[in-house]
Amino acid sequence: MKLTILGCHSATPRVDAHPTAQILEIKKHQFLIDCGEGTQTQLRKYKIKFSRIKHIFISHLHGDHYFGLVGLVSTLSLLTREADLHIYGPKGLKEVITLQMKLSNSWTNFKLIFHELTSKNSELIFEDDQVEVHTIPLDHRVYTNGFLFKEKEGERKLNIGAVEDANIDKAYYRKLKQGSDVLNEHGQLIKNETVTLEPFPSKSYAFCSDTSYKQDIVPIIDNVNLLYHESTFLHELAHLAQKTKHSTAKEAAQIAQQANAKQLLLGHFSSRYNDVSEFKTEAETVFKPVLLANQGQVVEF
Amino acid sequence: MKLTILGCHSATPRVDAHPTAQILEIKKHQFLIDCGEGTQTQLRKYKIKFSRIKHIFISHLHGDHYFGLVGLVSTLSLLTREADLHIYGPKGLKEVITLQMKLSNSWTNFKLIFHELTSKNSELIFEDDQVEVHTIPLDHRVYTNGFLFKEKEGERKLNIGAVEDANIDKAYYRKLKQGSDVLNEHGQLIKNETVTLEPFPSKSYAFCSDTSYKQDIVPIIDNVNLLYHESTFLHELAHLAQKTKHSTAKEAAQIAQQANAKQLLLGHFSSRYNDVSEFKTEAETVFKPVLLANQGQVVEF
Repeated sequence: MKLTILGCHSATPRVDAHPTAQILEIKKHQFLIDCGEGTQTQLRKYKIKFSRIKHIFISHLHGDHYFGLVGLVSTLSLLTREADLHIYGPKGLKEVITLQMKLSNSWTNFKLIFHELTSKNSELIFEDDQVEVHTIPLDHRVYTNGFLFKEKEGERKLNIGAVEDANIDKAYYRKLKQGSDVLNEHGQLIKNETVTLEPFPSKSYAFCSDTSYKQDIVPIIDNVNLLYHESTFLHELAHLAQKTKHSTAKEAAQIAQQANAKQLLLGHFSSRYNDVSEFKTEAETVFKPVLLANQGQVVEF
Repeated sequence: MKLTILGCHSATPRVDAHPTAQILEIKKHQFLIDCGEGTQTQLRKYKIKFSRIKHIFISHLHGDHYFGLVGLVSTLSLLTREADLHIYGPKGLKEVITLQMKLSNSWTNFKLIFHELTSKNSELIFEDDQVEVHTIPLDHRVYTNGFLFKEKEGERKLNIGAVEDANIDKAYYRKLKQGSDVLNEHGQLIKNETVTLEPFPSKSYAFCSDTSYKQDIVPIIDNVNLLYHESTFLHELAHLAQKTKHSTAKEAAQIAQQANAKQLLLGHFSSRYNDVSEFKTEAETVFKPVLLANQGQVVEF
């Protein structure tokens, strides 16, 4: 998986401080997660192909997470896109995007499919043969979901030496990879686990923004490979985090630690902080390793 | 008057090619004209004080002219602005901005006053003691207005030598500046024009974007000091201009010439042109002088 940070700052865009947007490459997909104002310019800056974006996930309807969506949709239309575009986000998103299209008298020449979310429980919202996406209900000032992106477990690997020793015909290799026991050339039943190895471990990415500290999400993101968790404030401003339903770096680290995450990526820093290095220091008192989100940063895992 | 170009490109924003937005300083005002996506970032880049913007004029509801408005309004709210904000634009603008505020559950702490436009005739939409703003009905794919910004005629200037020779008491100077005849210290009536001079000429700025070639606007912008007229295409693509209801550089120059403008400023260049110098060459076959809009450019006139 490969995550590209297009913007990681909270609230209002500034020159070189873009609001939330990320691109996640997982299997054959290029998912866009949140779409603050200016995201289409950031996509161009980091040379990400617009045409490969087929699914967009919007966490909540605060401007710094979706004001760039209508512009991106318009641009896709001007680029004469034809492929369907799926948009997952809170109820209301369809109304606001279609109202703007109506007012500009310009409809997309591709299918725009809204998947409006209203549930307060974790839901499976996307699935194909390789990938699943689940919502992570968060606690913010408006209805908000994080998203868990999971690779499905792959096929078992053949232990070639063992397979050959067991005299299994090549025609059965496919079944072996799928986990079945098979008959060998002498008609003997060969137990799958004696000739195959565990599949490559499937990986996962959790995007949790915006939210106050919410322990309920821990079981959903259990053992996640990379956890992006918002940390708008340092813990000395925990009262502000509580009031505005955001988190501190320390709280984000507590979630990472409880969920047994492999890595924690912090972002959504308040614009009051010019230097964000202290977010790492604070979080690392609880959990390691900690990365700080940065525009243009690519995390491969 | 001082005009700052924040963005002058058509259609979709790109890195360093921002959609339409301009700041006009006229008397004590700082008017924002159009507000494409990313305008708030451009305002910061060119160090323009957000707090001084009290009136925003939106030509039409295509995204490259207003998708940055909701973000700017949200930012003004986060900056704890208190002063009223007036927004002039086509009917529908209020609905789309207030819907987004409703969905984000965040209302402005200042008064947001929409002046929705529907007339197809030129209207006076703003007036104070120094400035007038009139709409310029344009011809585009959706309902569109340009805007004419005019200084009101100032006071007459005293011809100090003549005033003193005529023995006029200082108490009457105010009346003289306002154009009245007055009595001198000997009770004689002194004709105003014998002791005063013409006021400084009042200046005007016309913003005309987006529009096809439309001769009807000529009487409205007669003798304008600076005419900004869109020129999306060069004349070799006149058929495209006609089809999309845009103008060519040559057509813009024809309007400038017929209106007896002092200067023509071209903008809203299609993204197909990497080098826009030919727009000037083409327009100058009809009218001079021609300026090409440029991000960050300041035109004082």
